[in-house]
Amino acid sequence: MDASGTRCHILSIAERLFREIGYRKTTVADIAKSLRMSPANVYRFFESKKAINEAVAERIMAEMEAELAAIAGRDGSASERLADFVRALNRLAIGRLIDERRMHEMVECAMTESWEVVHRHIARVDEMLCRLVADGARSGEFRAADPMVAARCVHSAIIRFCHPALIVQCADEPGPGLEDMVAFVLRGLRGPEPCPDAPASGG
Amino acid sequence: MDASGTRCHILSIAERLFREIGYRKTTVADIAKSLRMSPANVYRFFESKKAINEAVAERIMAEMEAELAAIAGRDGSASERLADFVRALNRLAIGRLIDERRMHEMVECAMTESWEVVHRHIARVDEMLCRLVADGARSGEFRAADPMVAARCVHSAIIRFCHPALIVQCADEPGPGLEDMVAFVLRGLRGPEPCPDAPASGG
Repeated sequence: MDASGTRCHILSIAERLFREIGYRKTTVADIAKSLRMSPANVYRFFESKKAINEAVAERIMAEMEAELAAIAGRDGSASERLADFVRALNRLAIGRLIDERRMHEMVECAMTESWEVVHRHIARVDEMLCRLVADGARSGEFRAADPMVAARCVHSAIIRFCHPALIVQCADEPGPGLEDMVAFVLRGLRGPEPCPDAPASGG
Repeated sequence: MDASGTRCHILSIAERLFREIGYRKTTVADIAKSLRMSPANVYRFFESKKAINEAVAERIMAEMEAELAAIAGRDGSASERLADFVRALNRLAIGRLIDERRMHEMVECAMTESWEVVHRHIARVDEMLCRLVADGARSGEFRAADPMVAARCVHSAIIRFCHPALIVQCADEPGPGLEDMVAFVLRGLRGPEPCPDAPASGG
């Protein structure tokens, strides 16, 4: 197995152990043992357990981003795609990051100890939202003087539905439903216009 | 001093000590000593340090709510008042809850150990926002089929600017500015209409 194959294998085993016995309880020695490797060999590829966690988190986020990119790149109006994008962000955050309680532990560690990884994920989601907003501006669905500012407004507006710690904290709070928030965000993007005589929406 | 005066005095001293030496380091014995009371006497009024913290948090939030209520109850269009309300929420969160680092410790404890206190504050802010949205619907500024749903959308949308832990976490993240978010929220409330021939806005 080449170096990149070994790295990938280490991450798969680490992710499985994080899921099965939890992030905090998993040691580099456990990972090495499952791989029938020496811990020293694992350390040749990752300098610390934190580095393994960051790589696992990157991989999970890359999978989420691939699903989101597929939705963003689909046919259909920008409004429909943006609404589905927000729904997917919520679904993925709940499914991948929260429902699997042991993975949630890993996500919390990433959010406190490895904010850089989370930061890059936020930036990539902002980029995708920005392209959706720009699509909608071109088709006449949205008004957005600055698509990136509008994208960041959307991302901030829905943070309650995609930030793992907030989802947990707000679980029992009365609040807008996801569909209420999707509708609110779309109204914010459409702005005070278009009026009945506005350009037809795309899609 | 009557019982209510004593309670109030205990809270003032506790708040001062939380500010001066920090929440975690302050003991009920410290509070009693500053009051020239026995700890047993303090416990007659508050069953635990947690109960004192909750009462201090309630008092700080009540002061914040009084400022917010003054803005909500002012003359002016609902849009202007709502924009100022959101700005004040942000300013109060930064000033009262974050900038005073030692108070931030107390706020964090309240948010993890005494969510009920925070929950009631959120509900009161929702109520004020709801009245503002309803005012704007009456004046023709906003469209809102359900003012409480719209109010909760606004509150969720601006959470990045009023939730102490998020303000700290997002401090170095690129994101919309407060004024971008205020404008976005107002567009969300105004909806796809009003068109040029819509009812004149109030104020």
